[in-house]
Amino acid sequence: MARANTTKRAILDAALELAATKGITGTTMDEVAELAGVAKGSLYYNFSSKDQLFEALLQEGVGALADSLRSAKGELRGWDAVDALVTRLLDLIAANAPLAKLMASEIFRTDRAWQETLFALRHDALAVFAEAIDETDAAAGRSGIMASGVFGAVLMSGLEWLVFEPERDRDEVAAAILATLRVR
Amino acid sequence: MARANTTKRAILDAALELAATKGITGTTMDEVAELAGVAKGSLYYNFSSKDQLFEALLQEGVGALADSLRSAKGELRGWDAVDALVTRLLDLIAANAPLAKLMASEIFRTDRAWQETLFALRHDALAVFAEAIDETDAAAGRSGIMASGVFGAVLMSGLEWLVFEPERDRDEVAAAILATLRVR
Repeated sequence: MARANTTKRAILDAALELAATKGITGTTMDEVAELAGVAKGSLYYNFSSKDQLFEALLQEGVGALADSLRSAKGELRGWDAVDALVTRLLDLIAANAPLAKLMASEIFRTDRAWQETLFALRHDALAVFAEAIDETDAAAGRSGIMASGVFGAVLMSGLEWLVFEPERDRDEVAAAILATLRVR
Repeated sequence: MARANTTKRAILDAALELAATKGITGTTMDEVAELAGVAKGSLYYNFSSKDQLFEALLQEGVGALADSLRSAKGELRGWDAVDALVTRLLDLIAANAPLAKLMASEIFRTDRAWQETLFALRHDALAVFAEAIDETDAAAGRSGIMASGVFGAVLMSGLEWLVFEPERDRDEVAAAILATLRVR
């Protein structure tokens, strides 16, 4: 079991690293096997196709994101919750920049085999933001659009920071994002 | 000349339509030629490679975006300018959803032949937002991060609207985005 889990982990990590720079379409199963250091037979034993591999990768990543956001919200409500969610999301992006890049590039693709899984998981992550916004007086039946806006602001500012201004510190970046949002 | 321009236009439009659903890597020159209704010889006469074709497409799109944002800012300053830029960007996304999707998926890729061109053009578009933010008292030397945040909020809310809630009207969406941002 431990062995199988280690192999799966190595494959998922290799797939993420490749896809973050080359895109999913530009990544081949041969490259994944080589970078993971596993035989092709072992790769296909764990994931029967490239679609299945990337569905598992995105499912794991977006699932962990939604869980972490839910725990950051905890008992907080309204703008206090939005504030905590913004900071948590920024930390998650910083901790896993390749996954954040991949999500940014996949989030509006509509031709993928794993489209429905990704929509459902994406909805779970955004739902935590929408729930917090619904607890404010600004929601007015449009918390879905607003949740996307807050999420998009953090995702793009966070990647801007990591890719173009890595010398800034995290607190400064969090403060800059909160300064663009109607929080507090 | 008119003929050449018409052919170029048909090729660029076909390339955008294909890439918006299949991604750039998933789009082939054969498919572009077929959808554009031009012979392959004519395609390669106009664009010597797929890289050159997509560089031209993104250059044209992001260039037009920066010009339109600059004209929306006009003589406006500070938050008034941010407000006008948010609304203009939303309208541009609605008018060209395939290009917006393509930009969202390419903006943080770092492995493209046209990377430097796209970085420079992206910078031109974000610079208009950064300039407006620099005219407020919230900038504090971090207008680059803040400009990305505002841009990301509009891009993601706008695509959320077009892809998932197309029944909403534009004014309602613009108001929802402005309600998430510290504008006014």
